[in-house]
Amino acid sequence: MSPPGVSEQDFSAALRAFATTLGAEWVFTSATDVALYRDAYSPFRGETDERVVSAAIAPDNVEQVREVVRIANRYRIPLYPISTGKNLAYGGSAPVLSGSVVLDLKRMNRVLEVSERNAYALVEPGVSYFDLYRHIQERGLRLMLDVPSPGWGSVIGNALEHGVGLSPLRDHFGAACGMEVVLADGGLLRTGMGAIDASPTWQQYKHGFGPYLDGLFAQSNLGIVTKMGIWLLPEPEVVRGLRVSLPRMNDVVALVDIMAQLAYSGVVDSQFQIRSPVLHGARDPEFETLATGGNADQWDAYARRRGLAFWDATFTFYGPEHVVDARWTHVVERYAKLDGVRFADAPTYRFPMSGEQRERVQDKQLLGIPSLQDFGRAAVDTGGHMDFSIVVPMTGEAVLDALVTFGRAFAQSGVDIGMGALTCFHPRALTFISSLPVSRDDREANQRTRDVYLHCVALAAQRGWGQYRVHAAFMDAAAATYGFGGGALTRFHGALKDAVDPNGILAAGRYGIWPRHLRRDP
Amino acid sequence: MSPPGVSEQDFSAALRAFATTLGAEWVFTSATDVALYRDAYSPFRGETDERVVSAAIAPDNVEQVREVVRIANRYRIPLYPISTGKNLAYGGSAPVLSGSVVLDLKRMNRVLEVSERNAYALVEPGVSYFDLYRHIQERGLRLMLDVPSPGWGSVIGNALEHGVGLSPLRDHFGAACGMEVVLADGGLLRTGMGAIDASPTWQQYKHGFGPYLDGLFAQSNLGIVTKMGIWLLPEPEVVRGLRVSLPRMNDVVALVDIMAQLAYSGVVDSQFQIRSPVLHGARDPEFETLATGGNADQWDAYARRRGLAFWDATFTFYGPEHVVDARWTHVVERYAKLDGVRFADAPTYRFPMSGEQRERVQDKQLLGIPSLQDFGRAAVDTGGHMDFSIVVPMTGEAVLDALVTFGRAFAQSGVDIGMGALTCFHPRALTFISSLPVSRDDREANQRTRDVYLHCVALAAQRGWGQYRVHAAFMDAAAATYGFGGGALTRFHGALKDAVDPNGILAAGRYGIWPRHLRRDP
Repeated sequence: MSPPGVSEQDFSAALRAFATTLGAEWVFTSATDVALYRDAYSPFRGETDERVVSAAIAPDNVEQVREVVRIANRYRIPLYPISTGKNLAYGGSAPVLSGSVVLDLKRMNRVLEVSERNAYALVEPGVSYFDLYRHIQERGLRLMLDVPSPGWGSVIGNALEHGVGLSPLRDHFGAACGMEVVLADGGLLRTGMGAIDASPTWQQYKHGFGPYLDGLFAQSNLGIVTKMGIWLLPEPEVVRGLRVSLPRMNDVVALVDIMAQLAYSGVVDSQFQIRSPVLHGARDPEFETLATGGNADQWDAYARRRGLAFWDATFTFYGPEHVVDARWTHVVERYAKLDGVRFADAPTYRFPMSGEQRERVQDKQLLGIPSLQDFGRAAVDTGGHMDFSIVVPMTGEAVLDALVTFGRAFAQSGVDIGMGALTCFHPRALTFISSLPVSRDDREANQRTRDVYLHCVALAAQRGWGQYRVHAAFMDAAAATYGFGGGALTRFHGALKDAVDPNGILAAGRYGIWPRHLRRDP
Repeated sequence: MSPPGVSEQDFSAALRAFATTLGAEWVFTSATDVALYRDAYSPFRGETDERVVSAAIAPDNVEQVREVVRIANRYRIPLYPISTGKNLAYGGSAPVLSGSVVLDLKRMNRVLEVSERNAYALVEPGVSYFDLYRHIQERGLRLMLDVPSPGWGSVIGNALEHGVGLSPLRDHFGAACGMEVVLADGGLLRTGMGAIDASPTWQQYKHGFGPYLDGLFAQSNLGIVTKMGIWLLPEPEVVRGLRVSLPRMNDVVALVDIMAQLAYSGVVDSQFQIRSPVLHGARDPEFETLATGGNADQWDAYARRRGLAFWDATFTFYGPEHVVDARWTHVVERYAKLDGVRFADAPTYRFPMSGEQRERVQDKQLLGIPSLQDFGRAAVDTGGHMDFSIVVPMTGEAVLDALVTFGRAFAQSGVDIGMGALTCFHPRALTFISSLPVSRDDREANQRTRDVYLHCVALAAQRGWGQYRVHAAFMDAAAATYGFGGGALTRFHGALKDAVDPNGILAAGRYGIWPRHLRRDP
């Protein structure tokens, strides 16, 4: 099957040209090979709307990538670049535009530089968190890597999707510094200080000279990132946790207000999160009655009868022991004034840590150790999951609204959804990520999942809340909620796309950005 | 005088249309009025290369700005948007393209929102640091504003120029969150979460959905920012300083390595700086001999004989007292291992602070109090100064190289240059800002200043070091050092410019970005 709008003849010619450039063994067209690029967690699995791939190609180096885009321009081949393709819950390696040719960058897996002194790495797209972690450990470098859960994904790919972790460097796009980008015309751009030949500050200073461009190449389709700098954390002396529990529903307002002040003041500089043992708990008939209009006193009585705190908040501190202890103590002092508060210490971890300790330790992600331990409740063998992920204001009122509103929507849908915590992955906002199950063979179940997902996108938009990251199958729906000024953002994206990729060969449709010939409203 | 490429007739028609839109009193064409927009510190003062203005217009609101750009497109009028125009040392309010019409946004000076709870402000371009500070103080809000020196500039303008201050929010572009932008075609864009109507997270979450765009509108000419969010700091309990002195030249390596680890670990999260009482001191004949090849022992002996520490480093800590003290103590412990180190405490300031205390206090900028106290040694009445401002790697070797190399170049030039400290204004790099004097009437002196400036740009580029911010008169020269890939960055900028401003009406030449009809190499 050739890509949409491409003749069989042109497609064959393009494949031959790719084979000449890359070697025939790196051009994949057999049904078996191509099936590997299906989204393992597709909510359209087996249906006509499932995104499929016409072929895949795997270059080894930047010059080959440049030649590939030149060929793609010649034959108007839609390419879909992936780093390692482990974007599960958000579409995996499958393209937005069905029939695209996957440009698989997994062979470009070189760790080009790691500076212990200045705590950064420069990597290629095929470098996974496991790869970079191993590189650091093998050399005994005293550096911590912020890792997502799970750790098999690409360092570049994750940052470009605005992925997150738990440590002070948890905002992976925020920790990216300096990119090399193959443009759609085959040009090679280095952003930031990389635009100065052999600049020693490429991985140290982000803004560069003139407009800061790195943002253009994340959650988009305006170029192919072939190198990226990522900041690392000097290995901390200790990592120490804290849990704060509060008894009453309305305590969430003070809980979040204090949290926010602590974060904005730099006392807390890593992830913290809020869960409700009540609202995240089992929904019995009494719960359902309260959920349709119970007042705070009734909710509090409900929690008391069940022996549940209404809120649990967890913090983690990284750094020298005395500084960590001072921060820990300050957080406790701030919350100690609240009536009924309870504190629980969490394990304190100390560095350096031996290889054996690293193997044995439980909280791997907190400690920057990549693993596959946290696959969540909707695991691969059940068909997987897709995530509903929104940005929520940093206020208790919003937290409560989110848990009540989406909790009710999830319950009413009849879909077995894993409602997430509200987590601070970014300096000043909360993120709320819930997992919706996907089935391998039950199309009706997948239809219910899609329905509740879209219903929740709409509920969020009514509150002015948007998606932080979105599944490839729902990018247009999510983009449509960003409609200020009659779609000014989409029009601006379109203008950029036309300017830097006039033939629209790169990742058509990604984050709602379509080339002119595929736009509804060109 | 009409703008370049615009007929007298079209210029008159455009001015009439501007007057119809804005009211005639907001269209300035008299020689006296227009002279106010000259760069008060121009290094070309009175020469043919001095950038001058053909007229100025001052809209009151966003809709007027949109109408102005529509008129400018109709008559191809080059506009030069300024916020308050106080970009002194970098070109003031004078355009890059002589004969442009200044679009002066000073009347748009509304503080649209200040959230104490979530520590941000939403402002218009005409809001100065003084304005926002007054707004906060009058309402008794417990917020600290990060201010540049001096404080009369625009909050938006400073952030868009990548300006800096001293507190944890010292990177002003880094502290910007969410923009409203009038595009060159009159379209109105809101970036980030602002693209969702009435989103409560516009000033809380930067990345938005799809490509992060705010970077495009800083140090550039791709749109006119009419609103911007800026993050504020909750008023800290205390602000406490520390000075670390080290005796020997080569101590700088350990000095910076420890500094870097402290910063990357979050122990130090505000500005710190390095000066050398020796290398920043008087240059006697013995100094000059050493400067042409003295070894470290000879330098150390020189410093000893004069009773000078070779290095002084200063730190500041913001936050709750116990946390600040723990950080302070940790920094002292880290440096205490170095032979010959000495420590000096700096005053500790406590908040809340009365209005009277705020008036009296010395370290105003450190405490977020805007002032005009720090105008530097080259003051207005001598003709002013222009700044040479580069990004330097975070290593002792680079610090030493910078001070020796530029110290020699400055001395050899015969120009009385104020060599700056190396300051950490950004998370992981040092900035080195030196002031070159500008004369009101001595053209030969200005020629020497320009010569040494360009010589230093070249010396920096040889090391792979680039400008962090540049004077309007030298943007092309600075941009030329960012030449990777045969000028790939400049070409990419050009492609963006053509896409979003095809008639090239906005700030032609800013940061080396020219519209197609004015490019040397279109």
